[in-house]
Amino acid sequence: MVVQIRNFPLSLVHMLAEIITIGDEILIGQIVDTNSAWLGQQLSTLGIRVVQITSVSDKADAIVQAVDAARQRASLVLLTGGLGPTKDDITKHTLARYFGSELVRNEDVYSRLKAWFEQRGRVMSTINGQQADLPHNAQILRNELGTAQGMLWRKDGCLILSMPGVPYEMKWIVTHQLIPLLKAEFALPVLLHRTLMTAGMVESQIATTIAAVEDALPAHIKLAYLPRPGIVRLRLTAAGTHEEQLQQEVAQFEAQIRELLGHHVYGVAEEPLEAAIGQQLRKRGATVATAESCTGGSIAALLTSIAGASDYFPGSVVAYSNGIKQQLLGVNHLTLENFGAVSEATVLEMVAGVRRQFSADYGIAVSGIAGPGGGTAEKPVGLVWIAVQGPEQTVASSFNFGNERSLNIERASMTALYLLWKMLVTN
Amino acid sequence: MVVQIRNFPLSLVHMLAEIITIGDEILIGQIVDTNSAWLGQQLSTLGIRVVQITSVSDKADAIVQAVDAARQRASLVLLTGGLGPTKDDITKHTLARYFGSELVRNEDVYSRLKAWFEQRGRVMSTINGQQADLPHNAQILRNELGTAQGMLWRKDGCLILSMPGVPYEMKWIVTHQLIPLLKAEFALPVLLHRTLMTAGMVESQIATTIAAVEDALPAHIKLAYLPRPGIVRLRLTAAGTHEEQLQQEVAQFEAQIRELLGHHVYGVAEEPLEAAIGQQLRKRGATVATAESCTGGSIAALLTSIAGASDYFPGSVVAYSNGIKQQLLGVNHLTLENFGAVSEATVLEMVAGVRRQFSADYGIAVSGIAGPGGGTAEKPVGLVWIAVQGPEQTVASSFNFGNERSLNIERASMTALYLLWKMLVTN
Repeated sequence: MVVQIRNFPLSLVHMLAEIITIGDEILIGQIVDTNSAWLGQQLSTLGIRVVQITSVSDKADAIVQAVDAARQRASLVLLTGGLGPTKDDITKHTLARYFGSELVRNEDVYSRLKAWFEQRGRVMSTINGQQADLPHNAQILRNELGTAQGMLWRKDGCLILSMPGVPYEMKWIVTHQLIPLLKAEFALPVLLHRTLMTAGMVESQIATTIAAVEDALPAHIKLAYLPRPGIVRLRLTAAGTHEEQLQQEVAQFEAQIRELLGHHVYGVAEEPLEAAIGQQLRKRGATVATAESCTGGSIAALLTSIAGASDYFPGSVVAYSNGIKQQLLGVNHLTLENFGAVSEATVLEMVAGVRRQFSADYGIAVSGIAGPGGGTAEKPVGLVWIAVQGPEQTVASSFNFGNERSLNIERASMTALYLLWKMLVTN
Repeated sequence: MVVQIRNFPLSLVHMLAEIITIGDEILIGQIVDTNSAWLGQQLSTLGIRVVQITSVSDKADAIVQAVDAARQRASLVLLTGGLGPTKDDITKHTLARYFGSELVRNEDVYSRLKAWFEQRGRVMSTINGQQADLPHNAQILRNELGTAQGMLWRKDGCLILSMPGVPYEMKWIVTHQLIPLLKAEFALPVLLHRTLMTAGMVESQIATTIAAVEDALPAHIKLAYLPRPGIVRLRLTAAGTHEEQLQQEVAQFEAQIRELLGHHVYGVAEEPLEAAIGQQLRKRGATVATAESCTGGSIAALLTSIAGASDYFPGSVVAYSNGIKQQLLGVNHLTLENFGAVSEATVLEMVAGVRRQFSADYGIAVSGIAGPGGGTAEKPVGLVWIAVQGPEQTVASSFNFGNERSLNIERASMTALYLLWKMLVTN
């Protein structure tokens, strides 16, 4: 049964959904099923609750059994996969039989497919043309990015939609066809989401700092902590019926959280820290260069992952050897002899050197013991010195990021970016 | 029913398994279920076929319904998740009720947990101690990495194993407890796997080149193409009863494939290309330095992801700006003016410059238009020039890696590594 939802309190009434992904490559672990996670996110933000995700083989009885079971629990069933043009892909024929459909050539789809191939200078083969043979009793949800169309059946108050498994095609159909259809046909609750991006604090520190705000949240507003390496996302979700009122309430709690976390909130939505840094640098017409030992170019790679980084990033020296630290960054050989490469004195000379070498306003320098080898009692694996220098300030700190090499490199990179962010916005 | 398998032809008889992952965070898409993919791989390599993967909520009826359904289809049911010490985690109590178990304090587990906390200088809380209260009729599969133990029930010829959802704990139990148990109790087929790592060819080129070998494979030996960015893994799987004979057969086909693919086969198992390059460099006591424009340090980051890279990698210059290309790499300003930064002439000067600057035996230089901006009709987004230079040879080639920035950077990095690999092993 499709539940019509009005005036619902959060987590009380939801439209229920199930996801079925089809394909042996998922069952043998050859690919990770990321479609389900994406669909789960989309449905959740619409206020639709996913009760089960099922992955089955490309076999007719497995597909039928899964659809049968899902229809008993949910009023929306989304299938992905098994819609390719080759004979391995049996979803369309299986569902057509299941719903008593005949396959009929859909002329609209056929001419669209033909044009699609012509545009690309290719001839449409017979089996590609057969992608336009579609179940007569299904509503066709157009796919503009591939040959397999979305097919929607309505049966006993349940919507069953079959989509291709290619992620970008599936996402296109959901975004441009399914979601507008659901919004038009069902009284879905108003769900507002607001995500604050934070850096430089771990979950427990944030929780302690904003405890009073969290305690004061009404039942219809929830706060989720979503951590990522070096980053914690805080997502406020408000549910109700009056959008404007919800927006005001969320804005008020957002302001309280921002007040308590200060510069740790660096952005909203899914903005990466390196993009927020880029904006700050561009705003002041400033540049940053990096001098990297143990991070091996990872900070430079993060900064240049943002389009347009050349506006504020002239470059980097990856100084893995001590010789290069001296030659390109001007680190004194006595500093290396007396204090070692992993030391405050060395990263301070590295950061000054890289600013000079690149004529950069800001500099980042990192030197540490990434592991697994190279540690001593005094300087264990995981010890990392980071220096950040701007026109008016220098900071240098040591950290211990643990003994897993790749995690170590990732944490050092994110921490260095956070220290630069902090210098940019608190001065 | 547990199927005893002897003398089976591949894909005819298998022990059947199902995976059930428990947790709302999977259903709302907050985390991607990577446990299932890993389990699917492990079971496949044992010759056990996964027929369904089910993700359900942390609710007793959902868990019971999923286990009931799975037992009807499979003789091995693996559950992950919901075994934490807090009250949200209900899997243990739910399964105990389902199997008519009483929870009994397991003194072995209790003293092990206590010692575990003491070693870390922490006091074991009551709720952590309760992790030692375990179902009396379950076989306990020890977990040495956490507090939640594996619990194995046997019912009507079906094995049902509940494990924690924390990936490294689950993997430890599977590797050290479950797999030895399955091998001891069941006549699993002998399945041999051999994975060849290739670079510098796409799937279709490989398929064409080794078509004759593939056609000659007997029914009990299969070849799978497993692509990754820049890499294709070729996995030979042989099934039968005589291990020695299978090994000989696989070795023979491996030799034929190696003969046809030549230097494109750079390693076995899951070895990364940057590790194979490291071995080659170390073997000859040679070094490599990189001069990176559009890849922004990604090649350096790949090379330094390998422990011990300091033996052969002195460092890198990320020369994002033209000024740095001149200043640190010695690129002539006339070259930049006449040919542009993305040109054969420029990457040739960059590669010579970086070898000189770092006194390196080998050099890699990359300059390209990563996008989305910066393209022209003559030099479109995706155009990348790569040069590799060694003591006796220089190669420079242009590529077009398409217009998606991150993919573009990744492809350019992997291609540059492949060109270095080729130079190292074909000279």
